Amino acid sequence: MEFSSKLLENAVNEVAMLPGIGKRTAMRLVLHLLKQPSEQTQLLTEALTKMRNEIIYCQNCHNISDNTICEICNNTTRDHSIVCVVEDVRDVMAIENTRMYKGIYHVLGGKISPIEGISPSQLNIISLVEKVKQQKVSEIIFALSSTMEGDTTNFYIFKQIKEFNINVSTIARGISVGDELEYADEVTLGRSLLHRIPFESSIKSM
Amino acid sequence: MEFSSKLLENAVNEVAMLPGIGKRTAMRLVLHLLKQPSEQTQLLTEALTKMRNEIIYCQNCHNISDNTICEICNNTTRDHSIVCVVEDVRDVMAIENTRMYKGIYHVLGGKISPIEGISPSQLNIISLVEKVKQQKVSEIIFALSSTMEGDTTNFYIFKQIKEFNINVSTIARGISVGDELEYADEVTLGRSLLHRIPFESSIKSM
Ligand SMILES: [Zn+2]
Ligand SMILES: [Zn+2]
Repeated sequence: MEFSSKLLENAVNEVAMLPGIGKRTAMRLVLHLLKQPSEQTQLLTEALTKMRNEIIYCQNCHNISDNTICEICNNTTRDHSIVCVVEDVRDVMAIENTRMYKGIYHVLGGKISPIEGISPSQLNIISLVEKVKQQKVSEIIFALSSTMEGDTTNFYIFKQIKEFNINVSTIARGISVGDELEYADEVTLGRSLLHRIPFESSIKSM
Repeated sequence: MEFSSKLLENAVNEVAMLPGIGKRTAMRLVLHLLKQPSEQTQLLTEALTKMRNEIIYCQNCHNISDNTICEICNNTTRDHSIVCVVEDVRDVMAIENTRMYKGIYHVLGGKISPIEGISPSQLNIISLVEKVKQQKVSEIIFALSSTMEGDTTNFYIFKQIKEFNINVSTIARGISVGDELEYADEVTLGRSLLHRIPFESSIKSM
């Protein structure tokens, strides 16, 4: 593509850096912004800049937050001895939407994936094991997607915490194997939390 | 969706204002930016801001440009008496890529569409008719997509310029009816320009 304007070319190239957005889609989005009042571009860029520069991760659970301790970790009516391990903020939102869970979370920030080059050290695993060691936790619930990466991550964590004799469960597989957690409907997801099973019996069936 | 952070919520909502981008896609894009170094967000937002605030439309052909007269209109080796009428910058880029056209362009900025509420007055039609009146043009080539809106727009313009006795042609319909111009391969598009036919014979076959 040869552009008639460097400004246009630059904008299209930057938008096309986003995952899943090709050059044609980028062009369509950029031309849309040109047709809208310039205030819309301003609102968009300011929201992105402010978020990227000011976003905070909760010091306790690593979820995205506006404060150093998130609202969930700050809520004393929740059971802080039950910790649900999830991949990212989308899973926290999905589980919160079910209104069936009253424990707290631990956000890993990803799953172990040799293919994508994600090693355990890049995830928030050490702080989770530390919580268990300090006997702050009575139960760990694994709520990662039931994919190869999810199972590997569950198992990696399980090996490090099993000696501490706490309950380790995984959400019931009402959710189809291979499906992403965030796309599950609320009822299925809520039930799979209620009917969670001991992690050790879940590996036997693997 | 209930967000754990207003900053996150705001960013997702602004991205989801873009056409064809739903909330889930917006969330995915925003979380991607959070995982990348903050420089990437900065490059993206600066490119969009600079483009929106500094972009110029060529005073002659209305194409997006970095100058008040675009490179094509400024090129004295091109034939300024042949004017190819297109919808937007993507069509100029597509035709330029064929390297078969040596005239200049006139960018309408859209097509007449009662459904989308686009009337002739919102398009760059008056300045095109003016060019014809001032006898600066020997031939007008319609190169709009061959859709209902494209045909309506061609016909609307044709009625206003036919009295001036210039050649009015449309690109050959090697391109399937209903297809967007910008998706045509270069050979087909190049040929359809070479084999353009008088506009009046094209309406007879309608
Ligand atoms: Zn927290
Ligand atoms: Zn121009």
